[in-house]
Amino acid sequence: MNAIGVDVGGTKIAAGVVSPEGEVLHEVRYPSAGPKERLLSSIARAVNEVREGFEVGSVCLAVPGFVMSAENKVIFAPNLHAIEGVPLKEELGRRTGLHVTVENDANAAAWGEFRFGAGSEATHLVFITLGTGVGGGVISHGLLLRGAQGAGGELGHITIQANGPRCGCGNHGCLEALASGTAIARRAREVASEYPNSALGRLAIERTVLGEDVTELAHGGDEAAISVLKETGVWLGIGLAGFVNVFNPEVIAIGGGAARAGDLILESARHEVHLRAQSPSRDLVQIREATLGAKSGVLGAAALARDAYSGEYVLGF
Amino acid sequence: MNAIGVDVGGTKIAAGVVSPEGEVLHEVRYPSAGPKERLLSSIARAVNEVREGFEVGSVCLAVPGFVMSAENKVIFAPNLHAIEGVPLKEELGRRTGLHVTVENDANAAAWGEFRFGAGSEATHLVFITLGTGVGGGVISHGLLLRGAQGAGGELGHITIQANGPRCGCGNHGCLEALASGTAIARRAREVASEYPNSALGRLAIERTVLGEDVTELAHGGDEAAISVLKETGVWLGIGLAGFVNVFNPEVIAIGGGAARAGDLILESARHEVHLRAQSPSRDLVQIREATLGAKSGVLGAAALARDAYSGEYVLGF
Repeated sequence: MNAIGVDVGGTKIAAGVVSPEGEVLHEVRYPSAGPKERLLSSIARAVNEVREGFEVGSVCLAVPGFVMSAENKVIFAPNLHAIEGVPLKEELGRRTGLHVTVENDANAAAWGEFRFGAGSEATHLVFITLGTGVGGGVISHGLLLRGAQGAGGELGHITIQANGPRCGCGNHGCLEALASGTAIARRAREVASEYPNSALGRLAIERTVLGEDVTELAHGGDEAAISVLKETGVWLGIGLAGFVNVFNPEVIAIGGGAARAGDLILESARHEVHLRAQSPSRDLVQIREATLGAKSGVLGAAALARDAYSGEYVLGF
Repeated sequence: MNAIGVDVGGTKIAAGVVSPEGEVLHEVRYPSAGPKERLLSSIARAVNEVREGFEVGSVCLAVPGFVMSAENKVIFAPNLHAIEGVPLKEELGRRTGLHVTVENDANAAAWGEFRFGAGSEATHLVFITLGTGVGGGVISHGLLLRGAQGAGGELGHITIQANGPRCGCGNHGCLEALASGTAIARRAREVASEYPNSALGRLAIERTVLGEDVTELAHGGDEAAISVLKETGVWLGIGLAGFVNVFNPEVIAIGGGAARAGDLILESARHEVHLRAQSPSRDLVQIREATLGAKSGVLGAAALARDAYSGEYVLGF
């Protein structure tokens, strides 16, 4: 049966009716601004609007924060404080009459790649998203690893360089501190001042360099920008090598904005994994781009909604 | 029903009949020396001898190497080459008439702690063994994470200091390279030369310092030895913080020879986890000593034998 996936982001709510084959049949969007009550109304309105004319059994909200499994409640949503502490399952259930599941957005995206995307032929998938931060989700033996409280899968916060740069989480040398879009932009500014005559260097004189600038300049052949992405790939690969040894996955899928750099990052990541991970795991794993892009939240949430409803996916729900 | 656990080590084979409650009812030991055929005979003999007079349905071999799930075959057993490539499930099944399971020794020990030991009240357990190397196993949502090929759970081989000391696996800065018994001994020799008047320094003049010497001197109050263990605990904690964020476990159990140092290592590990891991995971997790000691292999293998036989534990078998 069709299911609804809702991607509740820091600025917008996207709700989509998704077929069992992973096709988005209809989608609506609302801003996610406002306090708790307004936000809940917007989500309920998006769900009730998008379902019109479709047979739908269940809905899942993908939210930017830790989801406490026991209560289906969000704690600590730094980009959407209005959602913190709200009993989403009950509130949305009451307003929509549907079976409601709530999940962390990166975990939902991982489930989307597992069901419909880069990991659809895998039983063991590690999904990493390189954006402002580094998020992720793990599917092992076909099951989403949520952990005891639903706070598992924080793949961006493993230490890969104990005395490395400070991370937003307070730790030093996290994968996120070295391989996020933010880390790319920071490193790009350093490289720009070292190579003022490069395209990167010239841009940096005009304005603040962003992560996406680096990808664009690198695609255009600028060596300075390319070196930033290669170095990012090395740090990413150091983290991935650990995940290869720990999870022995068939596929690692890389999504998020910085993944648009594609092989400019992934080639050096693959090389580093080959150097640092063990056989047979390192020989099996395929490190590839995620395929669902911006739709991963809606698709993953819809797949979780259906799987939780049908009882096929039972852990932690 | 009772089950047999066999701990196949580099020097000895220990086979035990274990009750469903985790009591070792009878145990026999043989050396594990010799080529393939002699080794197989010794294992079969140990199993057939130990089962006499007991009702037993199944057996599991805990072996020091990667166990390829698909074939129940061992690849790469650096301390027991004779076992590599042998179809253990078929060979032992034929020689004993029992249902046979084969598992990596650290994974089996993790399962033992989960069923009968430090993690018996947990659903999510990370088990780390600090010995010559650093091994481990992960139970998540009550399931042993073996990975696609059965090579998962290599917790000692995550990078925590990218430019750190070379590890036996070829990588640099692995948890194993910084927190194993071998790493303790290496660091102890350095500290001994810095503090020649400490008990550690005086011992180092007499003979080569081993990991267990450090624990003994530290328990005796030697500050130099204590500092080595505290530093080891910091490195351990850096690795554990990542596992806390990734797995959100209720319990992390630390076993192996170096765990005899107890709180001399674990206190600084706990402190580091508190500094580096995220809430709510870091507030939930309990970091404690494993409780099964040298029996963890036999007990864990027996528990796996029973769970695989009864169908209660199904993944990967």
